[in-house]
Amino acid sequence: MILPAAIDPETRLQGEDHDALRLWLRLFTCTTMVERKVDGMLKRECGSSLPRFDLLAQLYRAEDGLRMGELSERILTTNGNVTWLVAALEREGLVRRRTAPHDRRAVVVRLTAAGRRQFTAMARAHEALIIKLFAGLTATERHSLHALLGTAKQHLRHLRDTP
Amino acid sequence: MILPAAIDPETRLQGEDHDALRLWLRLFTCTTMVERKVDGMLKRECGSSLPRFDLLAQLYRAEDGLRMGELSERILTTNGNVTWLVAALEREGLVRRRTAPHDRRAVVVRLTAAGRRQFTAMARAHEALIIKLFAGLTATERHSLHALLGTAKQHLRHLRDTP
Repeated sequence: MILPAAIDPETRLQGEDHDALRLWLRLFTCTTMVERKVDGMLKRECGSSLPRFDLLAQLYRAEDGLRMGELSERILTTNGNVTWLVAALEREGLVRRRTAPHDRRAVVVRLTAAGRRQFTAMARAHEALIIKLFAGLTATERHSLHALLGTAKQHLRHLRDTP
Repeated sequence: MILPAAIDPETRLQGEDHDALRLWLRLFTCTTMVERKVDGMLKRECGSSLPRFDLLAQLYRAEDGLRMGELSERILTTNGNVTWLVAALEREGLVRRRTAPHDRRAVVVRLTAAGRRQFTAMARAHEALIIKLFAGLTATERHSLHALLGTAKQHLRHLRDTP
C-alpha cells in the first residue's frame, strides 16, 4: 500500500514546527504504515487481522491463559471489543473460555491446540513481512534505530503521568 | 504513565527473534506510549482526546472543509465512528456540517471560529508535551532518529501491497 500524501500526517507540518513534533509525526507515520501492511497481509493471507493476531500472541505467551480483564489490558493495537473478538475466536475453535479455578466469577481464556497451530503459522508470515518492511535499512541502521528508540523509551518510561 | 512490563510488547520477544522484529516491536511500543500520554493529557487538561484532536487537526489544515468520506480516510489514530465524533463536536459548536455546494448528497465539515480557537490551544499543549516526551534524546539523536525513520519510511512507501 502506498499512503496517499493526503493521509500522511507529516504533510500537516509547517516550517516552524519543533523538531520533536516532526520526529513524533514521522514515528507515528512509520508505525501506521507498518500496521496497515501487517493488517492487510493477515487479512489476505491468513483470513485474520492485526487485532486477532495480537490477541492470539498474548495468549500464546501465557501458558495458564489470561483473565478477560488482563487480556483487554494487554491488547495495544485496538480499543475494539475484546469480548466480541474472544467469542468469535471461540466459535472458530481457536480459544476456549473457562471459569477460573479459584474465582468462579472470573473467566480465563486459553489458546486451544488449533489456536496454537494457527498462531504459529501467522507468526511466521508476520516475521517474514516485518523483515521485508524494514529491509530499506542496513543491519547497522536497524541497530542504530533500535538503540535510539531504546533511549527514547527509557525516558518515556520514567516520566510521570502528571505534568 | 509507566507501562507495566506485562503490557510492553517487547516482553513477548524471545532470544532468537530477528532484529527487524525487535525493531518493529520497539517502534510500536514507543508510539503506543506517546499516544497514551498524549491522549491522557488531552483528556485531563483539555477535556478532549487523541481522536478528537486528530479530527480537529485535519479540519484545521483544510480551509474549505472536508467531506465526511475524506475526513474518515484521513483519521489515522482510530477506527472509531467519525460520524458520531463529528456530531458530538457539532453539538459543542466546534464544527459545522453543510451540504456540499456542487453535490447536494455530500456533507462537508468545517471548523467554526470556536473550533479553530480550541484547536490552537490544544495544539500548543500538544507540542509542549511532545517536546517533553522526546527530551530523553539530544538534538543530535533526534536528528539521527528522524533521518533513520525517513529511510525506513521511504522503503515502506515504495513497497507494493502485493507480496
